[in-house]
Amino acid sequence: MTSTTTERRRRSDGEQSRNAILREAAQLATVEGLAGLSISRLAQAVGMSKSGLFAHFGSKQELQLATIETATEVFDELVVAPALAAPTGLERVRALAELFLKHVEENVYPGGCFFASVAAEMDTHPGPVRDRAMQFVEEWSVSLVRAVQDAQTEGSIATTEDPEQLAFELDSYLLLGNLQYVASQTPRPIERAREAVERRLAEASATEGDPAARPDAVDDGLY
Amino acid sequence: MTSTTTERRRRSDGEQSRNAILREAAQLATVEGLAGLSISRLAQAVGMSKSGLFAHFGSKQELQLATIETATEVFDELVVAPALAAPTGLERVRALAELFLKHVEENVYPGGCFFASVAAEMDTHPGPVRDRAMQFVEEWSVSLVRAVQDAQTEGSIATTEDPEQLAFELDSYLLLGNLQYVASQTPRPIERAREAVERRLAEASATEGDPAARPDAVDDGLY
Repeated sequence: MTSTTTERRRRSDGEQSRNAILREAAQLATVEGLAGLSISRLAQAVGMSKSGLFAHFGSKQELQLATIETATEVFDELVVAPALAAPTGLERVRALAELFLKHVEENVYPGGCFFASVAAEMDTHPGPVRDRAMQFVEEWSVSLVRAVQDAQTEGSIATTEDPEQLAFELDSYLLLGNLQYVASQTPRPIERAREAVERRLAEASATEGDPAARPDAVDDGLY
Repeated sequence: MTSTTTERRRRSDGEQSRNAILREAAQLATVEGLAGLSISRLAQAVGMSKSGLFAHFGSKQELQLATIETATEVFDELVVAPALAAPTGLERVRALAELFLKHVEENVYPGGCFFASVAAEMDTHPGPVRDRAMQFVEEWSVSLVRAVQDAQTEGSIATTEDPEQLAFELDSYLLLGNLQYVASQTPRPIERAREAVERRLAEASATEGDPAARPDAVDDGLY
């Protein structure tokens, strides 16, 4: 191996290890909170020394911010990116909701949605960690609102609907489904959220006879 | 004063002091979490010695459980009891929703609804504290479902509605309104939740011409 290759491998190993640590940190944060994410606790969870972890992150705040970045990547990969790849606005609305619920019921995190957990914890703690978590929540809302607006432009959601109000209502079903699922560990709340989303979209449908607005048109092979 | 009077006064002083401490503890818990409710932190907040607080509570878990009891009393007094005093099922549904939102926008706690905050924190921590918090959440759901069922019996909500599904949807608006209000410190999310509740109740109305189902029939002097 040339020294360049060695250097590259070393960096890549370091990045993999960093990523593995941060994924563990994100898991832990949904149970203990971001505030409970101390370097000593995480060291115990990943089986590393505290000094080894300090070499990676330096401070608790850096660790918290890096954990949020990792959770953002995971959420984009599992929920946002595939949902936004759907061809129509209405399908993007449905896919955002469905892939959100799917990532909850597949227990990607033990404490349910990472951002629901972290936003509820950090909302009363001003600072860069709260700001970054809230930025994510804001971006999520914007994705939902845009998909609704696209569906209105395409004629599948009635233009009489206020897109922000509709997005608020859809998002609320997802959030309560997530919270009750974590608390109850039964699939019922996820089913209730799905039912609520479909009922609300049927109500918002521009043309009641439009096949795109019918629940049985959901399964288009996207998920 | 006789010794009985002295004794009675001392006990009453002790109870008042205990109650004041627990109300402070409930405030603190919506910001720092129930897990962050250490006896030393609370001692600092109420200006008492740690040993003085230990005399009141003995352990962190006792303190957490007593805090939940106090928060339950506060919530019953501000939300549940006045709402359930309304004469019809539909008015009880509306009053449960409206008084919940009112207690959030009046900043009864700095971190919004005590139970939303505590349930989100404790859901992944098995034990008596989690069980007590979840019992409260369950009782709240039951109150909503019963009020919906009463409204169905009285003919103001359509019998085609699944009362548990409808209660889930109404509750979800309240929860997201609460969370976004705390995060944004603007009244908009509370207004969105109010609008969502009214829209959903109008949709669930048994007879569209029924004046009891119209939003303008809400303000009956109850709040």
